[in-house]
Amino acid sequence: MRAIVIHKAKDLRVEERAEASPQAGQVAITMATGGICGSDLHYYNHGGFGPITIKEPMILGHEVSGYIRALGDEVEGLEVGDLVAISPSRPCGSCKYCAQGLRNHCLNMRFYGSAMPFPHIQGAFQESLIADASQCVKANGLTAGEAAVAEPLSVTLHAARRAGEMLGKKVLITGSGPIGTLSILAARAAGAAEIVVTDLSDQALAYAKKVGADRTINVVTAPDALAAYEPDKGYFDVLFECSGAAPALAAGMAAMRPRGVVMQLGMSGEMTLPMLLLTAKELDLRGSFRFHEEFATAVQLMQSGQIDVKPLISHTFGIDDAVEAFEVATDRGQSMKTQIQFAKSA
Amino acid sequence: MRAIVIHKAKDLRVEERAEASPQAGQVAITMATGGICGSDLHYYNHGGFGPITIKEPMILGHEVSGYIRALGDEVEGLEVGDLVAISPSRPCGSCKYCAQGLRNHCLNMRFYGSAMPFPHIQGAFQESLIADASQCVKANGLTAGEAAVAEPLSVTLHAARRAGEMLGKKVLITGSGPIGTLSILAARAAGAAEIVVTDLSDQALAYAKKVGADRTINVVTAPDALAAYEPDKGYFDVLFECSGAAPALAAGMAAMRPRGVVMQLGMSGEMTLPMLLLTAKELDLRGSFRFHEEFATAVQLMQSGQIDVKPLISHTFGIDDAVEAFEVATDRGQSMKTQIQFAKSA
Amino acid sequence: MRAIVIHKAKDLRVEERAEASPQAGQVAITMATGGICGSDLHYYNHGGFGPITIKEPMILGHEVSGYIRALGDEVEGLEVGDLVAISPSRPCGSCKYCAQGLRNHCLNMRFYGSAMPFPHIQGAFQESLIADASQCVKANGLTAGEAAVAEPLSVTLHAARRAGEMLGKKVLITGSGPIGTLSILAARAAGAAEIVVTDLSDQALAYAKKVGADRTINVVTAPDALAAYEPDKGYFDVLFECSGAAPALAAGMAAMRPRGVVMQLGMSGEMTLPMLLLTAKELDLRGSFRFHEEFATAVQLMQSGQIDVKPLISHTFGIDDAVEAFEVATDRGQSMKTQIQFAKSA
Amino acid sequence: MRAIVIHKAKDLRVEERAEASPQAGQVAITMATGGICGSDLHYYNHGGFGPITIKEPMILGHEVSGYIRALGDEVEGLEVGDLVAISPSRPCGSCKYCAQGLRNHCLNMRFYGSAMPFPHIQGAFQESLIADASQCVKANGLTAGEAAVAEPLSVTLHAARRAGEMLGKKVLITGSGPIGTLSILAARAAGAAEIVVTDLSDQALAYAKKVGADRTINVVTAPDALAAYEPDKGYFDVLFECSGAAPALAAGMAAMRPRGVVMQLGMSGEMTLPMLLLTAKELDLRGSFRFHEEFATAVQLMQSGQIDVKPLISHTFGIDDAVEAFEVATDRGQSMKTQIQFAKSA
Repeated sequence: MRAIVIHKAKDLRVEERAEASPQAGQVAITMATGGICGSDLHYYNHGGFGPITIKEPMILGHEVSGYIRALGDEVEGLEVGDLVAISPSRPCGSCKYCAQGLRNHCLNMRFYGSAMPFPHIQGAFQESLIADASQCVKANGLTAGEAAVAEPLSVTLHAARRAGEMLGKKVLITGSGPIGTLSILAARAAGAAEIVVTDLSDQALAYAKKVGADRTINVVTAPDALAAYEPDKGYFDVLFECSGAAPALAAGMAAMRPRGVVMQLGMSGEMTLPMLLLTAKELDLRGSFRFHEEFATAVQLMQSGQIDVKPLISHTFGIDDAVEAFEVATDRGQSMKTQIQFAKSA
Repeated sequence: MRAIVIHKAKDLRVEERAEASPQAGQVAITMATGGICGSDLHYYNHGGFGPITIKEPMILGHEVSGYIRALGDEVEGLEVGDLVAISPSRPCGSCKYCAQGLRNHCLNMRFYGSAMPFPHIQGAFQESLIADASQCVKANGLTAGEAAVAEPLSVTLHAARRAGEMLGKKVLITGSGPIGTLSILAARAAGAAEIVVTDLSDQALAYAKKVGADRTINVVTAPDALAAYEPDKGYFDVLFECSGAAPALAAGMAAMRPRGVVMQLGMSGEMTLPMLLLTAKELDLRGSFRFHEEFATAVQLMQSGQIDVKPLISHTFGIDDAVEAFEVATDRGQSMKTQIQFAKSA
Repeated sequence: MRAIVIHKAKDLRVEERAEASPQAGQVAITMATGGICGSDLHYYNHGGFGPITIKEPMILGHEVSGYIRALGDEVEGLEVGDLVAISPSRPCGSCKYCAQGLRNHCLNMRFYGSAMPFPHIQGAFQESLIADASQCVKANGLTAGEAAVAEPLSVTLHAARRAGEMLGKKVLITGSGPIGTLSILAARAAGAAEIVVTDLSDQALAYAKKVGADRTINVVTAPDALAAYEPDKGYFDVLFECSGAAPALAAGMAAMRPRGVVMQLGMSGEMTLPMLLLTAKELDLRGSFRFHEEFATAVQLMQSGQIDVKPLISHTFGIDDAVEAFEVATDRGQSMKTQIQFAKSA
Repeated sequence: MRAIVIHKAKDLRVEERAEASPQAGQVAITMATGGICGSDLHYYNHGGFGPITIKEPMILGHEVSGYIRALGDEVEGLEVGDLVAISPSRPCGSCKYCAQGLRNHCLNMRFYGSAMPFPHIQGAFQESLIADASQCVKANGLTAGEAAVAEPLSVTLHAARRAGEMLGKKVLITGSGPIGTLSILAARAAGAAEIVVTDLSDQALAYAKKVGADRTINVVTAPDALAAYEPDKGYFDVLFECSGAAPALAAGMAAMRPRGVVMQLGMSGEMTLPMLLLTAKELDLRGSFRFHEEFATAVQLMQSGQIDVKPLISHTFGIDDAVEAFEVATDRGQSMKTQIQFAKSA
């Protein structure tokens, strides 16, 4: 079977790997779809980000769905042929943070496609994957492409839950990439009454409109529009910062009302913040990192129709075109969520 | 102009009253629609409830919408002809609870149609109403009937907000009357993934289905169905108790998971509770009373289409048929939300 | 070695049991002190409570401290001779509630001295105990008697943490037994500014005064005193209900201010509550059940001197006088916390 | 009567002003003690801070206590001769944030000694002050010096309350000036079990030790000490950032455990933060600004002895030595809280 392997920046290869068999508690999965994430793109374009770099070949990918092909012993609740969304999150279950229910902070996390520990944690862009049954959530009724969006959607559901109740709230989202646009869906599903989205790109903002933003602002062509929300100490109750860009966060903070909640999803090393605004308006700037229980919730909310991610899947490539897929995904002006199709059916 | 006045149990009259003029900060309203609430029915059928009884004639009604007919001085943001939802909540703004932002606990509240203080607070079932401009929320785009549902919807939005974030949660609702069915809409708007509703009446449960309940249980004809959720210490994350009936609350508590949140909306004097369940499962039983800021939110969520209350408006009567309206509203097997139409247009 | 075994109501025996050896991860403990809890007294006086009854002989006791006598393999951080407080809470670590960090709701809990499952979970009133190292918290600097109070103190710390921040708050405590008086210490340690305690017994209330209650009210001799807190919708921010008596809870609810938090610690089957107060004042009635992480906190707060439980230890008996100890503990007019001393030193 | 007036940087004068009489709802106060705050020092040394500068002569001072000398009409609960702590916070009571109970965010705040609006809001360093009765909290049993500390203590109580419950928590405090050392007292009163304080100055840290810090770290002489708390993703539950220095905040964030809460009290324009830590550890960085209800709580906790601020009052000067007082207060190596004594008794 084949896998998509990063060797170094711009050196992505489709390679043969040996197939394995499921052990007790595991399943063998015929991979259906894999979405390309921002971190995959960092490995592809730069060989890593910040202090995290590739030191050995690593299979990429952690937004995946597939069809159960074989069951190991002691597996219940899954059957051969089931379409499943596969969580890339594998906490140890026994460290102190796992014991406290904070599984996304596991001290021994083995998250697919991460170069952080060495040896690296191999990813899931493989035609055949062995996974724990507990990673699999049945996704009947969804397309394989939708099921593969469960992972990034979980990231935004986790942030939305951490932001607290949102019924009737005014929400600002800075950055209209995949995480920003999925945040629109999460915020709306949670009851947000008004959603404004900012970005530098009209193409990106067009997707925001498609999935329900009430207003979009291109901060390049309308640089003063957001400041109109600043009078009376600000307007928005909640901000999802999805750009990782300090100017976006700073402008967003200025538009927040006192006691507003800022969820930081965008990854960045250092950012220079207007701390006087944070202090004087008593803003609440909260990091949000991955997810845990929200993975099953993501599948369920797509199944019920409360969240529809299909408009965000902009491109689908075959595994042979993996390099092209990564190039297209890199071009924000062209693509939103780019996926690779490994198999069309069980 | 005419008003609907309760004199004593079963003695409801349509009477002439003098018209007044708006003072500074006030508006004159041509009443459009008034919904009949459970408390109106208590006054109509029993002359009050518990220690609260009618001691002088009182105009009923607090779920109302109307058209602005004239503006007093210093009124901004409203224009003659506007359809408005009118909040019946008039806190003093200066007592200690108002100062703390807990306006629904105002020590000097003058809530429309309440026999609690004496002289009673007159209600809003009047063809012409003088109200503070601050009570009025523009309801453009809604029907007058929908606008009159803003008030009971606010009650459920307030409860939903007090219940905390609900994204992907499993929700049980006991009691499928107007408050119970509006709670379905509020919970779904807040992201509830699964909503189960119980009642004694198939007619009531049919409305629950109409507005989106995933499952309805008639506890008379399927007395064991709810108990199926009890294993493993229970299933539901949130309960909206809307019946005011102790057996409903007790059965609901048994079906709640540990740390579940029970919102008590149903009014009742005393209830006998299974306290061992509350303690051992660490349930969180919270009273929910009226609303404040949620009134504008209710209008906004109807305008955006996130909440559609139209299927719940079962009957509309003219003011001349007020007594019949109250009789129909009393019969749960026949009606859901019964309204009185005062004027058809501005 | 000897153990204190309940056979049926009023049939308590000191019996010989075989000694065991610690396995990997375990320690052997020379028991120092064991406190008698209300549930021990229910087994002693009535053979159980509610649906929970003794079906086979069961060693009692779960408030215990002792000296490490021997270490099994792989034990770190403990040494022979250490005085330790021993947590009676043994969650499975792998059920769904454990995975969520809700260890006190473990589906497979093995809590010392519980007749709930069958075979029963044997308790810790044994001269020599084999325990998991993870149950032991070093208690250097404390007396063995204090260390044995870590368990009930944890119960009140858990409730205080669930009640939320308490800096400057007004706190009412109904029931001045061991849990009520320890709640005084927990509430004060958390910053409560004013603490009022009610009970039926002057002897019990004398202990409340001793550990810092600002005011005590004997509801028998001063039946109207608490009602003086009712005007303006009530006075207290937080209530620790520690009596399990419905009249105490009802009177407490009437004295609570709107949005007040009621922590229910007192165990009771059914209670009839003034639900109109709960709804109209939006009270928040929360069950509180056992503890988990608070066990180490209890030891630490005693070591730092922030909490001093010594005034509450009213009686200490040798193991040969176990029956007398249980009789004294049963008499609230005579005792507060009664303990059994198993060994005087390591 | 005389007042302490800032004209421009380093130009502080003691000037004669006319006395006024109390109107209805007001009192005349013979000022007893005024503490010099960091913002007073900014005006004194730099004529302002950031965009806020003195444009006309302004009386300084907002940490004040005094004796009631005369009562206006309609004043209840105060008597001539009472020692009172005087809150400098005068919200309007009717803007939207006041209506929501967020009085410290009042759109029309008139906080003593603020150059932000123009004309400036005059301060309280005056021998005779007219204040609203509602600003006064009786401080019987305290010294006038203690009563004047109610204001900065309120700032830290507000932050501690916003940080959530703190029973048994591990707390880091960066910056050991007046706010940092008062935060020690607030955190301990709220139940913090372990408090570590960092600063650049041994003199400042000596005060931290005096009021109960468990450990102090001089980050100049022990630059690596704090990093010892970083393993396993960090150690502290709560951080009070009281320095306004980016390196202190960054080092503190690295020592925080996942989901830790960082209260930002130190004022600063911009700060460059390690956002990857904030995101990956899901830290919660909350601004904290002034106070409202905490002012009465501050007085009460000093009266009960739960908080003792006396060790922090390092210097007291007469009004004639106001300039020297400001010079001493500017020298962190010499002083902690410097106060001016206006009158020794009523």
